[in-house]
Amino acid sequence: MGLIVAKFGGSSVADAAGILRVAKRIADTKRAGNEVVVVVSAMGDTTDDLIDLAKQVSPNPPGRELDMLLTAGERISMAVLAMAINDLGFEARSYTGSQAGLITDSSHGKARIVDVTPGRIQEALRENAIPIVAGFQGVSQDTKDITTLGRGGSDLTAVALAAALYADVCEIYTDVDGIFSADPRIAPKARHVPRITYDEMMELAAAGAKVLHLRCVEYAKRFDLPIHVRSSFSDKEGTFVIADLNDQSKLKKLSKVGAIMEQPIIAGVAHDLGDAKITVVGVPDRPGMAAAIFQAVADAGINMDMIVQNVSVHESGATDVTFTCPRGDAAKAELALRRIEKDVNFKDIDTDENIAKISLVGAGMRSHPGVSATFFKAIADAGVNVEMISTSEIRISVVTRADDATKAVTAIHSAFGLDADGEAVVYGGTGR
Amino acid sequence: MGLIVAKFGGSSVADAAGILRVAKRIADTKRAGNEVVVVVSAMGDTTDDLIDLAKQVSPNPPGRELDMLLTAGERISMAVLAMAINDLGFEARSYTGSQAGLITDSSHGKARIVDVTPGRIQEALRENAIPIVAGFQGVSQDTKDITTLGRGGSDLTAVALAAALYADVCEIYTDVDGIFSADPRIAPKARHVPRITYDEMMELAAAGAKVLHLRCVEYAKRFDLPIHVRSSFSDKEGTFVIADLNDQSKLKKLSKVGAIMEQPIIAGVAHDLGDAKITVVGVPDRPGMAAAIFQAVADAGINMDMIVQNVSVHESGATDVTFTCPRGDAAKAELALRRIEKDVNFKDIDTDENIAKISLVGAGMRSHPGVSATFFKAIADAGVNVEMISTSEIRISVVTRADDATKAVTAIHSAFGLDADGEAVVYGGTGR
Repeated sequence: MGLIVAKFGGSSVADAAGILRVAKRIADTKRAGNEVVVVVSAMGDTTDDLIDLAKQVSPNPPGRELDMLLTAGERISMAVLAMAINDLGFEARSYTGSQAGLITDSSHGKARIVDVTPGRIQEALRENAIPIVAGFQGVSQDTKDITTLGRGGSDLTAVALAAALYADVCEIYTDVDGIFSADPRIAPKARHVPRITYDEMMELAAAGAKVLHLRCVEYAKRFDLPIHVRSSFSDKEGTFVIADLNDQSKLKKLSKVGAIMEQPIIAGVAHDLGDAKITVVGVPDRPGMAAAIFQAVADAGINMDMIVQNVSVHESGATDVTFTCPRGDAAKAELALRRIEKDVNFKDIDTDENIAKISLVGAGMRSHPGVSATFFKAIADAGVNVEMISTSEIRISVVTRADDATKAVTAIHSAFGLDADGEAVVYGGTGR
Repeated sequence: MGLIVAKFGGSSVADAAGILRVAKRIADTKRAGNEVVVVVSAMGDTTDDLIDLAKQVSPNPPGRELDMLLTAGERISMAVLAMAINDLGFEARSYTGSQAGLITDSSHGKARIVDVTPGRIQEALRENAIPIVAGFQGVSQDTKDITTLGRGGSDLTAVALAAALYADVCEIYTDVDGIFSADPRIAPKARHVPRITYDEMMELAAAGAKVLHLRCVEYAKRFDLPIHVRSSFSDKEGTFVIADLNDQSKLKKLSKVGAIMEQPIIAGVAHDLGDAKITVVGVPDRPGMAAAIFQAVADAGINMDMIVQNVSVHESGATDVTFTCPRGDAAKAELALRRIEKDVNFKDIDTDENIAKISLVGAGMRSHPGVSATFFKAIADAGVNVEMISTSEIRISVVTRADDATKAVTAIHSAFGLDADGEAVVYGGTGR
């Protein structure tokens, strides 16, 4: 019994049947004696449909108006969900992001939360009502205009509200039973992960796992707020994301399943097919040249992920600088680089969109030597060529040919003994 | 040159092409040197689609949630319209009813405006932007919940905003060139009416003319705000609704067409096929019996329109009480009467849904005797039987068989010399 913030994504409320199913689950949670605050995304394809409508009218709509338009999506889903819950005998009241106190900066389309003042939500809870809050949206502190939080925004709304309300747990409902040791679509023996640390989850999210967005895990870590990623289609426990897997008291409070004995070395294998690799060929080996390249790309608003600079490989003493970035930004990155071509005087730009990034994540790496050796041996034995390497304290990532992704993930998954005996589970990303 | 509030209904912004057409018209008005505030309804069938969605989920949704749901409609149209105007080189900013300062009571689905505080709209005008305001919606003064204004709500938003901003005129754009002397679908010789008084317009609206809603004309009259009803498909002047047709200075300011010399006797003929006639048969002729009947119907929330009580027509000394009400309320009215059947001890209830109400409206009636005589002679000559009569200072209404409506309207229209020489114009109602 406690205060639960439960977030349902667009695929969970895609149609009237989905709305009714989610309403019943919320009523059950309330009936079990919990206080419940619900965060909901727009129904199914609503957001895409609204974007299509905007495109029919304007090639480049102002951010303020696009946010106004897109926030109509959650307005619809939250009102309809509230209606369905009311029919089950509980009072539900819908609130926009603005009404729920989600205060942001003014960066339309990717606003950052600057404060959460959930006075109306607390009032609703005191009156035994179930507040239904629009995910993904807020209101600008300065201009009072409506804003949206960007990718992963609804998860972020849920975690931020849960933190501000001192909730016991933030439940993120999706269409899978939580986190898996790899993407079951390419690794059929992927195993369900019952618990994972914030750090591991952030590394997995950054490495391409789609279930939780990086920003929401960062926020939860900052407030030490437990996240429970679970399926809206089953009653099974999903994956708990917490600070310390050895925190038995927290685990006991959250989970019906007995606490585990020891933290596993490896949390899982992630892959990402959404990046491109850009190589700036023949960069003069003089101070400031690499910096100029990175600055130009950053100024274009592009996140570089892995970066490699070779020592002089050309006879002239020039080097190659290689980085990865989201594939959708590759053209913008090349354009930014062409604009400084004369200043830097590099030879060429080579863009490769046919790559995969494969990552192994596990907090246990810190204390277990030999993980790297096992990792690279598995890849080599599978006949996969490694093109780039990058590591953190709890992650090893490599870039391979896109075609080798399945082979590499499967080999690594087996090499670390992660393979489950059960059958494959269907796996999918969340909406926003 | 002045401050214009322009309202566009759902049929004017039904699709992307409509949005672009309306955007161009707004840009033209702005370019001509006017300050413009736009009020917009939901696109085409959006509201009906949202109501359908609600019905799929809940048989009887709470008013608060239904209002939250329906207001998504204008949110979409206003944002998209703002985008289209921005592309034409003018800054447009969309505002919800709440943001625009439309303060209402808490009667969800039929809220009344209690205050208009358009501070953000005035700020936008000062900054040379074009504010686009959601019609039909407001925010409750007490609960801060989102409300809707009910039928004719968008027109009311426009008029209320225009009054609060001291606008020079409120333009109501629809799909016809303004008000006609009869519905051209049944009277092909109907004539365009260039000017009409608030009082005449209110009588026409109450008598079934669909172009402007009664509430909006009442509101405009209270603030002496000129309304210009015109087509979004042409540049022609439509119909000006003002207090006094002889106010030459106001007419000269509003209209490019020369002022008229004398106010016409008759403004037009309206008909309404949406009513039912209910006769309570054999009501004992004792004090309080008619009052009990009217009270029961009023308590059921039903508006009675015409009421007739015969003197004792039954041998027992009992009378018949007959009234008209909206056809959709007829069953509810009969139920309310059945509940007091024992107390009042009437004999029977006869519901007739096959009636038409025909009305002649004209401020000149006051000073021109003989209007009634001409009216009833025309109907008699056309062979139409009159079942009920009701009059006001500037209106005569009769109930006839529904099948006789066209015959009656045509005969009256001709008898008063209203027939135009030109062709018929297509005529349609506005949305909400």
